[in-house]
Amino acid sequence: MSYIVDRRGLEFILDECFDLDGLLKAARYAHLDMSTVTAMLDTAQQIAQDRYLPCAAKLDAEEPRFTAGKVEIIPEVAAALKEYSGAGFSGMGIEQIHGGAQLPCLLTTALNGVFMAANISVANYSFLSNGAANLIAACGSDEQRASYLPPMIEGRWFGTMCLSEPQAGSSLSDIRTRADPVGNDVYNLSGSKMWISGGEHELTENIVHMVLAKIPGGPAGAKGISLFIVPKFLPNPDGTPGDFNNIALAGLNHKMGQRGTTNCLLNFGEAGPCAGFLVGQPHEGLQAMFHMMNEARVYVGHTAAMLGLAGYLYSLDYARTRHQGRHPGEKDPTLPQIPIIEHADVRRMLLDQKVAVEGAIALSACCARLVDEKACAQDAAAASDAYLLLELLTPIVKSWPSEHCLDANKQAIQILGGYGYTRDYPVERFYRDNRLNPIHEGALGIHGIDLVGRKIRLEDGRALPLLVAEIERTLAACEELDDEVEAMRGAVAQMTKTAGALVKEPALSKSLASATRFLDAMGTLVVTWLWLKQASVAVRRLRDAREADIPFYTGKIKAARYMVREKLPDAVASLDRISKLDDVFFSMASEEFAPF
Amino acid sequence: MSYIVDRRGLEFILDECFDLDGLLKAARYAHLDMSTVTAMLDTAQQIAQDRYLPCAAKLDAEEPRFTAGKVEIIPEVAAALKEYSGAGFSGMGIEQIHGGAQLPCLLTTALNGVFMAANISVANYSFLSNGAANLIAACGSDEQRASYLPPMIEGRWFGTMCLSEPQAGSSLSDIRTRADPVGNDVYNLSGSKMWISGGEHELTENIVHMVLAKIPGGPAGAKGISLFIVPKFLPNPDGTPGDFNNIALAGLNHKMGQRGTTNCLLNFGEAGPCAGFLVGQPHEGLQAMFHMMNEARVYVGHTAAMLGLAGYLYSLDYARTRHQGRHPGEKDPTLPQIPIIEHADVRRMLLDQKVAVEGAIALSACCARLVDEKACAQDAAAASDAYLLLELLTPIVKSWPSEHCLDANKQAIQILGGYGYTRDYPVERFYRDNRLNPIHEGALGIHGIDLVGRKIRLEDGRALPLLVAEIERTLAACEELDDEVEAMRGAVAQMTKTAGALVKEPALSKSLASATRFLDAMGTLVVTWLWLKQASVAVRRLRDAREADIPFYTGKIKAARYMVREKLPDAVASLDRISKLDDVFFSMASEEFAPF
Repeated sequence: MSYIVDRRGLEFILDECFDLDGLLKAARYAHLDMSTVTAMLDTAQQIAQDRYLPCAAKLDAEEPRFTAGKVEIIPEVAAALKEYSGAGFSGMGIEQIHGGAQLPCLLTTALNGVFMAANISVANYSFLSNGAANLIAACGSDEQRASYLPPMIEGRWFGTMCLSEPQAGSSLSDIRTRADPVGNDVYNLSGSKMWISGGEHELTENIVHMVLAKIPGGPAGAKGISLFIVPKFLPNPDGTPGDFNNIALAGLNHKMGQRGTTNCLLNFGEAGPCAGFLVGQPHEGLQAMFHMMNEARVYVGHTAAMLGLAGYLYSLDYARTRHQGRHPGEKDPTLPQIPIIEHADVRRMLLDQKVAVEGAIALSACCARLVDEKACAQDAAAASDAYLLLELLTPIVKSWPSEHCLDANKQAIQILGGYGYTRDYPVERFYRDNRLNPIHEGALGIHGIDLVGRKIRLEDGRALPLLVAEIERTLAACEELDDEVEAMRGAVAQMTKTAGALVKEPALSKSLASATRFLDAMGTLVVTWLWLKQASVAVRRLRDAREADIPFYTGKIKAARYMVREKLPDAVASLDRISKLDDVFFSMASEEFAPF
Repeated sequence: MSYIVDRRGLEFILDECFDLDGLLKAARYAHLDMSTVTAMLDTAQQIAQDRYLPCAAKLDAEEPRFTAGKVEIIPEVAAALKEYSGAGFSGMGIEQIHGGAQLPCLLTTALNGVFMAANISVANYSFLSNGAANLIAACGSDEQRASYLPPMIEGRWFGTMCLSEPQAGSSLSDIRTRADPVGNDVYNLSGSKMWISGGEHELTENIVHMVLAKIPGGPAGAKGISLFIVPKFLPNPDGTPGDFNNIALAGLNHKMGQRGTTNCLLNFGEAGPCAGFLVGQPHEGLQAMFHMMNEARVYVGHTAAMLGLAGYLYSLDYARTRHQGRHPGEKDPTLPQIPIIEHADVRRMLLDQKVAVEGAIALSACCARLVDEKACAQDAAAASDAYLLLELLTPIVKSWPSEHCLDANKQAIQILGGYGYTRDYPVERFYRDNRLNPIHEGALGIHGIDLVGRKIRLEDGRALPLLVAEIERTLAACEELDDEVEAMRGAVAQMTKTAGALVKEPALSKSLASATRFLDAMGTLVVTWLWLKQASVAVRRLRDAREADIPFYTGKIKAARYMVREKLPDAVASLDRISKLDDVFFSMASEEFAPF
């Protein structure tokens, strides 16, 4: 059994639920077939198993250090990343025309997932780099693409995203980093950027920062933000890294988890000029940056899911092999102890993990599939629908796994008991690593505001009916799941009603006060839908399944039932309460929290 | 504002809700009055603030190390504990006749709480020591009391509890440590004990281990367990520590949190004879040990509450002083940013913490008060009622705070955002520290089994009606809270119905399958009751409150309403589902979890 990937489960999601095979028939993916996919997954699993997994605990214990002006990282990290790039995974989503492998997002997400589960701290470097390269491919000029993409796709240069500042974390409109024009779309950057993952290291020859800054004289707030490429070393005409661009590491943050990914405060242009190269038009940088931010949001949700999976697989194996206690009512203490998976409460904790983790993986697959559908769409309407649905689901794919797969990791610790609380076992590390996910790439509350304040109102509220239609398509195809389908239809009706109440409420502050709870409840509803999708596939496949596949499918059906019976009702009740817009916490004055 | 204690809130709980003043009128506490109480709280706060708090982060970063055969702990720990003992807090609950201060449990719990919030890793040493001393005082012989209590009450010797073994964590009936008689109630101990907090250190002259072991020839299982005092150094006739008793530290566990409390694997009698002194009768040790275990369970729940409080106070202060963003709908980005407590979602996170933390503190106060009521009872019936109610509430006081105040700490991190995820701020440490509480002193699932398998069945099911009567007493006294009282009566009816269904179910395995969920739902119900108790007091006090007290009381009332409206319904729905005894997870076969 592998601790980092469940290949049978992954095959079920990719092929049986989200039809990767069908997707590959699109002209865009003519260079791919399912045997290539299998080979890539094999390679990813091999590298993750051999290079990423073995150094994960060591990297956590020996986090990067800032000494003598350089960031020291244990050497296993560079070695692992070199194999990753060597196998062609850097820039794997970039179009072939720009030198990439042009893989569908459904597949890159799955491939990334294998590395995440093995060692998230290492996986982050290449993800950020891929994201920055994708952004340059999508929004950069031909010249920018020519000079930055080749070394990034070869993994010789890495990338970052630089948004937050010490005084502006969630409030991007308050950033202060300045970009003064020096001519020819070149600007002089000055200011500080906070929480920059992969912001400084010696892993690569160069680091390409994607930086948000304000050009003086532009509009105030979010409308005056521009995007710049700011390399650590200025590229020479021959493509090699040249002069130092005066980006100073002011300090490393010492985090609770994901410790192996450096996280920095960077000062731009402190000791000398720091050149930034404008991407796109002045003051339109935030829109461009959303290209990378949205990708990062799916990535963060998938990270949460894969850390959840790693804990699930570990605790499942433990529960099958650890012997403790006897069956309830068994009075004979001389009988041998039983594997703890025999205890109902341990099964409950495993099933809680299963529905969270496999539901979250289905959710990232669903979103990744929408990215691909948009890219392959035959007409503008189909592209627009896929895009709109993805917009609606983005706050959910970022947030629901971050909450519920963190909780899954909590259950994994609990199954291991005292052992799970020690650093000799990996589950406490997964829990620490996963705690970051509700915080970065937009804190949980920000995504609630995005969903309620923006996404359900886009294009006259067209997104939610699109989702409801998708859900109904799944429900209509369900067989042998009548009770569950009925419960789900009731839940959808409640969601529609509650969303309507929120949109109709004239006081924005009042509708936003329930936003985080709406986000969570709607997330549970969406994940329940994806569980019914899985169950529906399982019911059909079960009819001519191989003997060995039977428990796999019956397990999927039972998990879907558990989700509908145990998790969905609380979400529906919460949606009902939210629709009343009675927010007692909103009326709590600061001094009422006490102490005063 | 203090980060470790909310004195106004504590005064409310002790005096206004649980009538400490009235309790002190009992003959047992004739040596105490409220001014002594205030002085003791002042002293505790001072020592905690000056000695415990400043070294908490350092102790976490520089955990105890096993070098050259000794355990090295940063020197601040011994200094802090010396002040604690010097101020008379060691053995503070022990009866005066045995040399203790004979404080009521309601007060010792409050006093302990101040140290817990400041530095739980240090507080654990003295708690374990107090618990071991209490056990010797309650169950030891006169000779044992004479030889062990004086140095323990002076804080010169510490104590531990040694129950678990590597192969027997939750299953105590499977322990293997042997106690071979050598005469005169002296036994030769041999075996290994796991997860021993405070099991080895150089903080004191001696360590007094309270050890469960089996005398060969006794009954199998839990009925053959005996209790022994096993000192690290055998006491000389003059009371000084004498010969080493062959207890070897086999290794320190490296935990996720509570790192400053050594946690050990100890080998007894490996390199030479290890003497254990029988406490009470052979084979009746588990019953005696429950004296310490039950105390430890209230302690663990209170620890969870106080770690929750520490996070709440810290994040409340942060929310009041950190400026970020603007009011919803505010379009002018040039306006100054607002304190984040102005954001509804931040208030929600504060209120979630408030109801969990202050509810949990009320729960430990309630249980502590029952300990005192039993001790002061005028007749056997009153003592028996108090004891039975405490028995019923013990799994709840251990478990509910451990779950919900851990969640409170998660919210504290979220309020601090990225900062909260770094080790520069204490909230991530509280979260790591608190993660232990659902694991030790009986894992969560064990307490579910205790509640459903045993406590609700004790004395023909007399405990639950006792609780219901107590709740009804509170509800009858509520004014201006009609909706809340009605909701609570409905919840109580559902609880009674569900408990009835569980008790009537003939298959024990089936009723136990829902035990953990029943424990959690019943916990929410009990805590909601205690919130209504607080709200009811607040309503009355509000009528002639000082101006400065008004927000304190209105905050209590709003928090109670939030608990009833937002938290209680899910518990009631869960109780309803449990009553149907439909446990899908119970039917999940091992291979259905996949991967296989």
